[in-house]
Amino acid sequence: MPSYKAPVEEVLFLLNDVFGIERYNTLPGFADATPDVVEAVVGEGAKLCEEVLAPLNRAGDVEGCTRHPDGRVTTPKGFKAGYDAYAGGGWMGLSMPAEYGGQGLPHALNSVIQEFVSGANLALGMYPGLTQGAMAALLVHGTEQQKRAYLPKMIDGTWTGTMNLTEPHCGTDLGLLKTKAVPNGDGSYALTGTKIFISAGEHDLSENIIHLVLARIEGAPAGTKGISLFVVPKILLNPDGSPGGRNGVACGSIEHKMGIHGNATCVMNYDGATGWLVGEANRGLNAMFVMMNEARLAVGIQGLGQSEVAYQNAVAYARDRLQGRALTGAAAPDKPADPIIVHPDVRRALMGIRAFNEAARALVLWTALQSDVAHRSDDPAARQAADDHMGLMTPVVKGVLTDRGFANAVEAQQMFGGHGYVEEWGMSQFVRDARIAQIYEGANGIQAMDLVGRKLPRDGGRAMMRFLSEVEAFSRENADDEALKPFLAPLAKSLGHLQQATMWLMQNAMARPDNAGAGATDYMHLMGLVAMGYMWARIAKAAAARKAAGHAVARMDARLATGRFYVERVLPETATRLARISAGADAVMAVPADMF
Amino acid sequence: MPSYKAPVEEVLFLLNDVFGIERYNTLPGFADATPDVVEAVVGEGAKLCEEVLAPLNRAGDVEGCTRHPDGRVTTPKGFKAGYDAYAGGGWMGLSMPAEYGGQGLPHALNSVIQEFVSGANLALGMYPGLTQGAMAALLVHGTEQQKRAYLPKMIDGTWTGTMNLTEPHCGTDLGLLKTKAVPNGDGSYALTGTKIFISAGEHDLSENIIHLVLARIEGAPAGTKGISLFVVPKILLNPDGSPGGRNGVACGSIEHKMGIHGNATCVMNYDGATGWLVGEANRGLNAMFVMMNEARLAVGIQGLGQSEVAYQNAVAYARDRLQGRALTGAAAPDKPADPIIVHPDVRRALMGIRAFNEAARALVLWTALQSDVAHRSDDPAARQAADDHMGLMTPVVKGVLTDRGFANAVEAQQMFGGHGYVEEWGMSQFVRDARIAQIYEGANGIQAMDLVGRKLPRDGGRAMMRFLSEVEAFSRENADDEALKPFLAPLAKSLGHLQQATMWLMQNAMARPDNAGAGATDYMHLMGLVAMGYMWARIAKAAAARKAAGHAVARMDARLATGRFYVERVLPETATRLARISAGADAVMAVPADMF
Repeated sequence: MPSYKAPVEEVLFLLNDVFGIERYNTLPGFADATPDVVEAVVGEGAKLCEEVLAPLNRAGDVEGCTRHPDGRVTTPKGFKAGYDAYAGGGWMGLSMPAEYGGQGLPHALNSVIQEFVSGANLALGMYPGLTQGAMAALLVHGTEQQKRAYLPKMIDGTWTGTMNLTEPHCGTDLGLLKTKAVPNGDGSYALTGTKIFISAGEHDLSENIIHLVLARIEGAPAGTKGISLFVVPKILLNPDGSPGGRNGVACGSIEHKMGIHGNATCVMNYDGATGWLVGEANRGLNAMFVMMNEARLAVGIQGLGQSEVAYQNAVAYARDRLQGRALTGAAAPDKPADPIIVHPDVRRALMGIRAFNEAARALVLWTALQSDVAHRSDDPAARQAADDHMGLMTPVVKGVLTDRGFANAVEAQQMFGGHGYVEEWGMSQFVRDARIAQIYEGANGIQAMDLVGRKLPRDGGRAMMRFLSEVEAFSRENADDEALKPFLAPLAKSLGHLQQATMWLMQNAMARPDNAGAGATDYMHLMGLVAMGYMWARIAKAAAARKAAGHAVARMDARLATGRFYVERVLPETATRLARISAGADAVMAVPADMF
Repeated sequence: MPSYKAPVEEVLFLLNDVFGIERYNTLPGFADATPDVVEAVVGEGAKLCEEVLAPLNRAGDVEGCTRHPDGRVTTPKGFKAGYDAYAGGGWMGLSMPAEYGGQGLPHALNSVIQEFVSGANLALGMYPGLTQGAMAALLVHGTEQQKRAYLPKMIDGTWTGTMNLTEPHCGTDLGLLKTKAVPNGDGSYALTGTKIFISAGEHDLSENIIHLVLARIEGAPAGTKGISLFVVPKILLNPDGSPGGRNGVACGSIEHKMGIHGNATCVMNYDGATGWLVGEANRGLNAMFVMMNEARLAVGIQGLGQSEVAYQNAVAYARDRLQGRALTGAAAPDKPADPIIVHPDVRRALMGIRAFNEAARALVLWTALQSDVAHRSDDPAARQAADDHMGLMTPVVKGVLTDRGFANAVEAQQMFGGHGYVEEWGMSQFVRDARIAQIYEGANGIQAMDLVGRKLPRDGGRAMMRFLSEVEAFSRENADDEALKPFLAPLAKSLGHLQQATMWLMQNAMARPDNAGAGATDYMHLMGLVAMGYMWARIAKAAAARKAAGHAVARMDARLATGRFYVERVLPETATRLARISAGADAVMAVPADMF
């Protein structure tokens, strides 16, 4: 039976020592996030995830969701109690505004809880996850009346939310969407069409489900410029806000998927369902994009969560499983064999995951703090810089953390040999569940194109320049720090690769856009490697300081050694990424489509 | 519904143009393998796999195997007919000796069919696959009486075989095994113990199942030096060879696995089962190792087979799915969007798989031909050289082809977006099925240790020296060939990385064995990258020759372009592998086990 322990020490070290969350205390909500409050919130979140959500994970995978002939969907046994514990603890509104019932705490703290939930039970965590996404859209684009009608009940968990974008013939290319909205004459619209892959589209966890739906108003322009966003509650509301009759939306079927079996992935049929416009007509895609940064960050976090839980269980197995002897002589001569954690190839695999997890967590928290600045600061320059960071780093966090998160789950499963392939041990589930995060919320190839085609060139490359400058400045300021020496030289080398790749794209992609497309995925990973290398340098600085102060020396030594593994073993991959990018599109595009 | 088309053109090109199979016609069996026979065999094998085995694949995954309360196991609907078609076609004994009913054709041809079967239906293919493994052990180590008793019925498919190694507490470390064998006094033994993960351990496809079982004879030494190999038929044979009573072996349960659901993975309980020694007492591991080269080669081939079928289905989807427009302007302006094969990032993924498949297939056939030489040549020097090659390349084929084969199945699944995650489309199955090949027949970390710890240093590094010399000689001989220019420079660079890594290991692993262990996996992949780079150079030479002769020019151009993709985009990874290896074991081993 797999288990999960939330990485509390790691999170507090990052928030307090590496990023100094107290430095943000002029932002709204941060003043309330005193060290005591942060520790309490993180500790309580850990407890919920370890004791309530994680124990439901494996059974949820086995049982899955069931759609009944009348269209009702039931979630696995225990999910309702797990969801209620989550909602009852006030977690849904942790960083939502107090005026709608939220706690107004930093989004960075919410990101921490998202990681814990994703590691403990990804399938269950998606129900509140989608709700947070829907709330974000309503918060930014909804009318005050809409906010008052929906947000308090969503924040207290009585209702959940969904996002309805995909249709059978369109996923990435939403310009093709066909779901239509016809004005009813009373300000509402009648929506008709079929949406697919709707996570949490129908279930038994909440009293109502608030669907956010992209549709085309009758007569609107074709393509992406004719798409509007609507709010469509499953149960219509009476004028006093109490539940009324059933709306014309129903779950037609649920998908049989590779993983996240505990989450109902629904085909949703809209048959003249009543909906209300959210934001301006024909500006639905813009409304969606506003919330996509947070949603994509959340999916990147899912990759980290699965990597962490898979790692923990692999470590436990590697300590426990006796097989073979250490190359340097028996480590446990009193036992029939040594625990496999003595073997360097096992260590290589575990260290690789460990070195990723810590840097990825840092990248998430750094970016989440920037999100807080972008949304809460009253300094326009600070807001702009933070927004630049968010825009640039979001596709990297989504794409790289989910690609590596999946690969790490596979690597962790490999430790178990044949036992890893047997469902009973739970490692297969981590692999199958982690796989979805590379696909949804914009498949990772789309993230790469978003980075190279939109975020990188935007505003003359301002965001990228700022990132490069920050890393250079950090390296300069710490050039004489002995503890950082092992980190700064490899970081500078890899930063050079990123600069060369960026230059190459600037010089070669304008004239031939395929050069950008052909290098996009490698560029995204190159960027992720360097960003995590920078995270390690910052972690090392904080760890060295703690060690110098005589605090948790053994733990800080382990942290520094993990960082050295990263810069010695992981970071050199930037050379290969650069080589691929600068090979350009020739060989990529040379074979005619009919010769494949 | 996924489909499969056997890569017939590719195989014939490799056998005829690249490796010149006719040059081997002095070896027994090869004289029969005239170009017409080869084409007929490959064509018939393709037909069986495309028309009979592939259509059973998805349904077999959904239905899986069922164990009944009485211990019987039934395979998915249609598997019996599929197996009968395979057996009836004479495929089981394709390269087995004629004296036991086989066709005596080259093992290389058998490898071709193994790829087709693995691509069409991996779960079904494992039943004959295990049988071929068991036959190989009997052929080399069995007495004449044992061979006559078992081989003809296995070759004609009336009986199948299994390999029983693993026990709950021992997989890699077989020295720990506990299954005991007590002499019955009549030359037979009574075997008692529990074996797990026994593929094809019990099923309804054959009249008898011939188990090969590792056990420890009562009083034998502890560890690996006290292990013997036994043959234990499910149904005992009467003195005249006809089926007698049921033996004391039964399937206790079947595993619920991530994939290969159509193959019964059994816990086998031996309860005083009657068995007979195969080969010498206490030399069972040696007997196993003899057959492991072929078995591991076969598993490497499974990785290739899954990569190929996943690729084919991804290509079909990429040609069909309309989404977005080409970066260079609409490619299909008459349609609402372009097929996604126009997008460079989709091409990048497809080309990566394609470039692997062709080189991996070449590496398999080259190695299989060496296996034929090693087993059939009457020239001791040729046999030794071929055996060196087999020993060196087997762990590379097994480890690299299954690691990459799995990664390619994942990459192919990614093309499908959300549809790839839904079981209905079949891409998830390829991923889940491909995963096992990295694990069984020696997990890939064990392959890496076998390469670095045993195969590389053996006989003063003779095998490796021979490989390096061959690549260098090829490059020298073709230095002036214009068509090969794009290939030879990158190959030389990567070969240099391999030489440096080899040198580093020689200098640093003796004094500190952990340095070998820490670099083993990267060394295995480095070797695979270079070996496939060499394969591409040879393919390019043959393709350029065909093109110069005006044959299949468009196809040869596509082949050459695919090879250029490999050397430009894949091969540069050798630099990263070298960097990791020469970083040594320090950072890998620095964290104490209790700090993980």
